[in-house]
Amino acid sequence: MPQAMDLPRNEEGIATALGILKQQFGDRFHTGQAMRDQHAHTTTWIRAQAPDAVVFPASTKEVSGIVKVCATHEVPVIPFGTGTSLEGHVNAPAGGISVDLTQMDKILAVNAEDLDCVVQPGVTREQLNTYLRDRGLFFPIDPGANASLGGMASTRASGTNAVRYGTMKDNVLSLEAVMADGRIIRTAQRAKKTSAGYDMTRLLIGSEGTLGLITEITLKLQGIPEAISAARMSFPSIDAACQAVMTTIQYGIPVARIELMDELNVRAANAYAGLDLPETPLLLLEFHGSDSAVIEQAEMFGSIAEDVGGTDFAATATAEERNKLWKARHDLYWATLQLRPGAQGISTDVCVPISRLAEAVTGAQAKAAELDLLAPIVGHVGDGNFHSLVLIDMDNDDEVRRAEEFTAYLADEAIRMDGTCTGEHGIGQGKMPYLIKELGPTVEYMAAIKTALDPLNIMNPGKIFGPRR
Amino acid sequence: MPQAMDLPRNEEGIATALGILKQQFGDRFHTGQAMRDQHAHTTTWIRAQAPDAVVFPASTKEVSGIVKVCATHEVPVIPFGTGTSLEGHVNAPAGGISVDLTQMDKILAVNAEDLDCVVQPGVTREQLNTYLRDRGLFFPIDPGANASLGGMASTRASGTNAVRYGTMKDNVLSLEAVMADGRIIRTAQRAKKTSAGYDMTRLLIGSEGTLGLITEITLKLQGIPEAISAARMSFPSIDAACQAVMTTIQYGIPVARIELMDELNVRAANAYAGLDLPETPLLLLEFHGSDSAVIEQAEMFGSIAEDVGGTDFAATATAEERNKLWKARHDLYWATLQLRPGAQGISTDVCVPISRLAEAVTGAQAKAAELDLLAPIVGHVGDGNFHSLVLIDMDNDDEVRRAEEFTAYLADEAIRMDGTCTGEHGIGQGKMPYLIKELGPTVEYMAAIKTALDPLNIMNPGKIFGPRR
Repeated sequence: MPQAMDLPRNEEGIATALGILKQQFGDRFHTGQAMRDQHAHTTTWIRAQAPDAVVFPASTKEVSGIVKVCATHEVPVIPFGTGTSLEGHVNAPAGGISVDLTQMDKILAVNAEDLDCVVQPGVTREQLNTYLRDRGLFFPIDPGANASLGGMASTRASGTNAVRYGTMKDNVLSLEAVMADGRIIRTAQRAKKTSAGYDMTRLLIGSEGTLGLITEITLKLQGIPEAISAARMSFPSIDAACQAVMTTIQYGIPVARIELMDELNVRAANAYAGLDLPETPLLLLEFHGSDSAVIEQAEMFGSIAEDVGGTDFAATATAEERNKLWKARHDLYWATLQLRPGAQGISTDVCVPISRLAEAVTGAQAKAAELDLLAPIVGHVGDGNFHSLVLIDMDNDDEVRRAEEFTAYLADEAIRMDGTCTGEHGIGQGKMPYLIKELGPTVEYMAAIKTALDPLNIMNPGKIFGPRR
Repeated sequence: MPQAMDLPRNEEGIATALGILKQQFGDRFHTGQAMRDQHAHTTTWIRAQAPDAVVFPASTKEVSGIVKVCATHEVPVIPFGTGTSLEGHVNAPAGGISVDLTQMDKILAVNAEDLDCVVQPGVTREQLNTYLRDRGLFFPIDPGANASLGGMASTRASGTNAVRYGTMKDNVLSLEAVMADGRIIRTAQRAKKTSAGYDMTRLLIGSEGTLGLITEITLKLQGIPEAISAARMSFPSIDAACQAVMTTIQYGIPVARIELMDELNVRAANAYAGLDLPETPLLLLEFHGSDSAVIEQAEMFGSIAEDVGGTDFAATATAEERNKLWKARHDLYWATLQLRPGAQGISTDVCVPISRLAEAVTGAQAKAAELDLLAPIVGHVGDGNFHSLVLIDMDNDDEVRRAEEFTAYLADEAIRMDGTCTGEHGIGQGKMPYLIKELGPTVEYMAAIKTALDPLNIMNPGKIFGPRR
């Protein structure tokens, strides 16, 4: 499998660090095989590379202590949230210590007047939103999985709500992080705007643990909208659906979600949930606003979509019907896996300028057909981001090769269209060659920053830049 | 005056670079005193420090050539847009070459379907919006001055529309830049989202020319809203006005602008424009949306504001009346200078969490009174950002000292309130000690990045980090 090369291990340093951390952390320190394997397991096709130990710190100070031990003995530090990343981010190609942050799961402050909150990195998205609900607030970023907010920041996650609310880069005010020398920094104050020096907040967001370990996050919050409505519409073609998306965005209709499901996905959803949606491309939408605004927005969308051949428009403002409509979307991963029981699902993640979306999606469908792969497509199409879930038998070498050819094709095509090989999953181990294809010499300046801030290369080594950086 | 220390000059290198660039650029190369002085002049109280020469490149390739010459001979490179920065950003404390980008003023592409455009750095905000108007699009960031977009990106500018549309960090998709070694990079593709490696776009935005020279900018655009309405309301106190702002933001009313003018500013506006606004704190608002939405939003604001004692509500959806209402705000700089003809206006720029805004503004008013300074306040209060324009006689040493005490007080107070010494103007030469107060050891990691990307310290030296970094 690609990009999971083992890197040279510092056996002596690892042994020493293990001894020290075992002493310090007692029963919060683990070297059992099951625990180690669990911390290398990710929802990816990349081969697992287990760490040498897993430690569960309970405070920033403890994280700082761990990193200091690892810096002294030149041992890799791999942060771990919920393990839902998709590109081998939690693998330990050179061994080292997995720092599991699930015990740092406190919501430290909710500043309702300022629409922000401060959380530890192990707090999950759903945990936060459950906590906030009674206060009339919510955190909008929804990558699908119930990921930890530290992990979401580390990979610059986004998901279905990004078309309206942006990505993690747009929803973090400040970070506390432990740097490679073990020192603790805060990237910014809690003010909504700042021009105070380099944007260290945005530098750490998406750095995948390679520059520092995030130990606290100050997040922007949103008021729960007065009204939420949902709508769906079927289209005769991907082209028509994409045209409807483009026009909707151009008209400035503030859709909160606008998701594309291709024919295959609709078929999977019908089978999985017993629905009878027309088995043609489908757009699923959500609108947030005042009672009158959400009705107006749904109507405007309906009218735009009808003009390009949309049919079977259905809209609802009741929570029950809306949840039913969106459940099909949320269950899609499981539904599509049922298209080929026992297969491994490999998610691609390209993002292109929206004007190229139809071309990119139909190109992906054609390529999958050419390679005889089952690869249903779902997309956060308001942002030009879509995922093929390639369903393959990992024991069939030829299928694996074809899946690799398919993912390479998608990345190359996205780059050719002025898009990116990764809209929201990150580079990790899986996308390293595409990053270089995409940004060329820019990657050398990224690597110079990595070297400047982590000269020993102990922070999640072997990610983003590859073995030798 | 503070923070305008001269730095050691590399006389030999400067002389050599001047000779080479004169040869290469002919009549686009200037060493005349008037031209040099003009390029050190900024709307600031910081003493001017002229460059040794000014050069007008016409292309990225020419910029790259200039930087390569300067790198070879270790000569400072100071980018220049329109000279409207406020913290000594265009000063040349160690001499060097001012790179005037006004001839790089082409709008290279408008991708209406993708709501983005590509511009050279010398394009100004007004030039772009004039060009876009017929296409039904606009670029929302409005820092007041008709600044160049390259300069706005360099200082992470924002202004009156930021409460709705964000700052430059939120409205740039990608940058082309010439790095300190003269190489040209592109920070990202044109896709709306990306998780492809470190966020070099956001790292360069706000780096004030210290890491690279921005030569091309891909900007997000907005559709011109169907309707724009404006409103104003007077308040018995700063507290009441701030309470109205907080509730408006909490309710999620998507105000496009919400500006506070204190009593002194209203008096200045009345005198300057012949208005008869009540001389109490005033909020001035703008709403963007559909015809029905802007009316609904103005009404909701009016009702919120009335609850906290707001009076004299006036709203309008006609362009003529709206422009009249906003002209008073736009002319405020000139109007307030008339409060003390001949005085120099010194703008402060703190930004605090919105829950601390009333305390920060009234504290500033009290401190100005205590120091016997005339310092009217205007604020982008939806973001917690406000400016005192301190009106002083620069020949009166005691007044200058008191103004320094005032600006120091404001920065310290903002930092104490978890806010920042600069919401949108940047650090430049003027705010260096406050940056360290604000972010402490974080500044050392910023400096490490600076050293890694510009080891010779030729890119706008003496800014952000001070003489020795």
